[in-house]
Amino acid sequence: MKIRKIDSANYKQIITILNDWWNGRQMTDMLPKLFFEHFQETSFIMEEKDQIIGFLVGFLSQSKKKEAYIHFVGVHPEKRNLNIGKRLYNQFFEVIQQKGYDTVRCVTSPTNKASISYHTKMGFQIEIGDREVDGVSIHTDYDGPKQDRVLFVKKLY
Amino acid sequence: MKIRKIDSANYKQIITILNDWWNGRQMTDMLPKLFFEHFQETSFIMEEKDQIIGFLVGFLSQSKKKEAYIHFVGVHPEKRNLNIGKRLYNQFFEVIQQKGYDTVRCVTSPTNKASISYHTKMGFQIEIGDREVDGVSIHTDYDGPKQDRVLFVKKLY
Repeated sequence: MKIRKIDSANYKQIITILNDWWNGRQMTDMLPKLFFEHFQETSFIMEEKDQIIGFLVGFLSQSKKKEAYIHFVGVHPEKRNLNIGKRLYNQFFEVIQQKGYDTVRCVTSPTNKASISYHTKMGFQIEIGDREVDGVSIHTDYDGPKQDRVLFVKKLY
Repeated sequence: MKIRKIDSANYKQIITILNDWWNGRQMTDMLPKLFFEHFQETSFIMEEKDQIIGFLVGFLSQSKKKEAYIHFVGVHPEKRNLNIGKRLYNQFFEVIQQKGYDTVRCVTSPTNKASISYHTKMGFQIEIGDREVDGVSIHTDYDGPKQDRVLFVKKLY
C-alpha cells in the first residue's frame, strides 16, 4: 500500500465506484471534479497494486487563518479496519502542518454514526450546535433545509 | 445595488431560495456551506435594500498556477438583464487579478444553453472536449457518470 497525491485522472476511477463504496447511497453529487483539479496538494489516494483502495479530499481554507478542511474520505469496503483512513488523515495533517496550518475541520451527517465515532477516535472535537440528538450536538439545516450536520474540529498543536 | 464579500450568514438566505431561482430544479446539493466558510475572499453578493439579488461563489485554485475557479452564480429571477451577473464576474476578475491570478475556469451543463451563451458573451472560451452536441464541444461524464459538462476558460491578460 502506498499513499500519493491525487491527480485529475483519479477522478474517473473514484467517481465510478463511489456509490458502491457507500452501499448504493447517492454520493457522487457531493464530489464534483473541481476538487480533483484544484486541491491536489492536500488530497491523497491510497493504492494497492495500482488499484485505489482509499482517498481523502481536502483543501486549505482561504478565509479562516491556518485552517484546513476535509471534504470527503472513502475506503474500499473490503479494506476497512486496516488503518487506511487513519493513514490518509495523518498524511493530510502532516502536509498542512508543513504549510503552517494547525486546525482541521470537517462535517458529517448525524445519521452517520460510524463517521461520528471515527472522528471522535481520531481526536476531533464536536462543535456545540443548536440541539442534541442521541447525545450528539447537531447544527440544524447546516447544509441547507433538512441537511443537519455534526461539526468537527481538531487542533494540531 | 451594492456588491460585498460573502459571509457565512448569507448561506442560509441563499440556500433557502436557490431552487426557486432555478425554477424548482434541485440545486442545493451542489452548494454545501463549505464554500461560504472557506472562500469568502473570492465570493460576492449583490444586495438591494438588504435583500440578496445575486451571488457568485469562486475560489483560487491550489494546484493550478494563477488559476481561479467560479463554482456557482445566481441572480434573482426578477432581476435578470440588469447586468448583475456581469458586475459579479467583473468583481471576481478584479479581485483575483489583484492577487496575481490571470486565468478563470468554470463548467456548465450542456443543457444549460443560457449559461453557455452567457459565458461566451463574457469572453470565455470553450475547451475542446471529446464530442460535439448542437455545435458545442462537450466533455462526456466530466462530473461523473452521465454528468457531461461544457468547460470554459478565460484569460485575463
